[in-house]
Amino acid sequence: MVDLWHHGDREVGPGLVDLAVNVRLAEPPDWLITELTAALPRLAAYPDSTEATEAVAARHGRSAGDVLVTSGAAEAFTLIARGLGARRACVVHPQFTEPEAALLAAEVPVSRVLLRPEDGFTLGPVPEDADLVVVGNPTNPTSVLHPASSLRALCRPGRVVVVDEAFLDSVPGEPETLAGEAIPGLLVIRSLTKTWGIAGLRAGYVLGPAELIDRLRAVQPPWSVSALAAVAVVACCRPEALKQADELAVAAEADREFLLTGLRELGVAVHGVPRAPFVLGEFRDGAQVRETLRDRGYAVRRGDTFPGLGPDWLRIAVRSRPIMSGFLTTLRDTTTQR
Amino acid sequence: MVDLWHHGDREVGPGLVDLAVNVRLAEPPDWLITELTAALPRLAAYPDSTEATEAVAARHGRSAGDVLVTSGAAEAFTLIARGLGARRACVVHPQFTEPEAALLAAEVPVSRVLLRPEDGFTLGPVPEDADLVVVGNPTNPTSVLHPASSLRALCRPGRVVVVDEAFLDSVPGEPETLAGEAIPGLLVIRSLTKTWGIAGLRAGYVLGPAELIDRLRAVQPPWSVSALAAVAVVACCRPEALKQADELAVAAEADREFLLTGLRELGVAVHGVPRAPFVLGEFRDGAQVRETLRDRGYAVRRGDTFPGLGPDWLRIAVRSRPIMSGFLTTLRDTTTQR
Repeated sequence: MVDLWHHGDREVGPGLVDLAVNVRLAEPPDWLITELTAALPRLAAYPDSTEATEAVAARHGRSAGDVLVTSGAAEAFTLIARGLGARRACVVHPQFTEPEAALLAAEVPVSRVLLRPEDGFTLGPVPEDADLVVVGNPTNPTSVLHPASSLRALCRPGRVVVVDEAFLDSVPGEPETLAGEAIPGLLVIRSLTKTWGIAGLRAGYVLGPAELIDRLRAVQPPWSVSALAAVAVVACCRPEALKQADELAVAAEADREFLLTGLRELGVAVHGVPRAPFVLGEFRDGAQVRETLRDRGYAVRRGDTFPGLGPDWLRIAVRSRPIMSGFLTTLRDTTTQR
Repeated sequence: MVDLWHHGDREVGPGLVDLAVNVRLAEPPDWLITELTAALPRLAAYPDSTEATEAVAARHGRSAGDVLVTSGAAEAFTLIARGLGARRACVVHPQFTEPEAALLAAEVPVSRVLLRPEDGFTLGPVPEDADLVVVGNPTNPTSVLHPASSLRALCRPGRVVVVDEAFLDSVPGEPETLAGEAIPGLLVIRSLTKTWGIAGLRAGYVLGPAELIDRLRAVQPPWSVSALAAVAVVACCRPEALKQADELAVAAEADREFLLTGLRELGVAVHGVPRAPFVLGEFRDGAQVRETLRDRGYAVRRGDTFPGLGPDWLRIAVRSRPIMSGFLTTLRDTTTQR
């Protein structure tokens, strides 16, 4: 039985190098801390997401009615589960478990499509009668980026397709994004958490046709997005921030390739083409490897809580070259000593 | 038709003295800003409400299992509406409209009990078959504080009674509170927003039997409470903060009595005994008075969006003596010139 409620933040411990949580920065950048600090004295006012909504709309070339700012992507999943009245949801796994957990909490029946490692986790068909389909792009934990054309092909009348693009701003140039496309029935979820080191702040948003966005807004608690999250959304939509995000993404790509090379040298199987700032590996005795790594100071994300994977699968967050280098050395020792 | 989704923050405008919103401080106190500032570099971590939960439990003499920290009281209402499966909810009006709005959004049938001004808004009987009863104490907008014994008397097997104590920390000594009482079926909601000037941060909590709290937690999105809200909850539960809250409440009482005396001299009817840091008045030509006050720089809260009230009713937030004095002078001019 897979524990859908398990998340990487529970695997981190004092003194461990955190390769379990997919937040790239150790803390928010200085410019963002400066903006948040300046906003603290204004906290007496109730939050208002109007400016943040307009900033997101402008960033993606949408109209403001196509945007709902949320208290992190996690709230977006809850609103989708509650607000759309889906009856036959389908979640494409392996992926982030929160969408399925939110659907089950809302008592929406869920079926699963399991993509196969031997196919490189390529997107396959989903049940024809599914009225809600959830897919990640790039997918957590597989790191695979699906072509936009495959995602568009999932859309049809009477179905809502939810593409979780929480990590797409970590892929240089944001290829295969559907954020700017007004397709009937298509919802795109974004998060600011991963790139900007603000998981604690809860900031994300949903893009989609105004008719669907209105239904999500109708079930969102009032003032759900804090004033500071709204400030962060505005700040992170600025051209300078987008440029910096792309630079971070480019740097992460190089670090990921370094990690990948090292993993393959050690005989770790990586299926499909990783495109996100994390890598999913299939290890021999993965559970044991994870324990040994933990003993030696590294927390990696267990794979067995993701449907379709098992204890041999571990997800490793991409960090800077020196950290990756130290990790690979430790992994090598671990593997050769067994 | 009453607009349940209207809130006082929509009545504030540039250049207006804000007597419409029930947030007492113009900005958070320095010690709280200092704590929040110190927490900003730690925002990369996912939020964790464990410490905040324990702080709330200790403050009210409850066990941690009796506490759910929420993203403001507004989220608490949504969780109650979604998580308890109520079928015959009853909301005691006039009161804050968000609980009823949340129940309707969750498609829970709602009946209303209207307390009457001529009875001083004294709590009366509710339908015997109501399985969920919501009452504010002290009540927004009437400012009336119900006896704890009247609230306890509403409890019975098969019913959940929700007492919204969002303003009780603004009443010196917190009389009539049920926050510390473990009564089956009783939920108490608290907010930090009003006393501490952090409406923008979204911080509140629910107290109740662990069995009910578990059901609310099951429908709360993960990481719903931001890391900064959790920091604020811990900070505001410290003995020094509680002492300062009581001092603020004592000061507000004196300011309220000053406002009350002035209002009565001008022939404004105030029904019941105001105990919260706002006063509900029945004016002649209230709608016109509100417009004229607005023209002269004062925003007060319209009463006609509260079930049971009408356009002659205005809610006035208690501010410092000089502000109240200026307001009363303007009101006097307004009244005599008509």
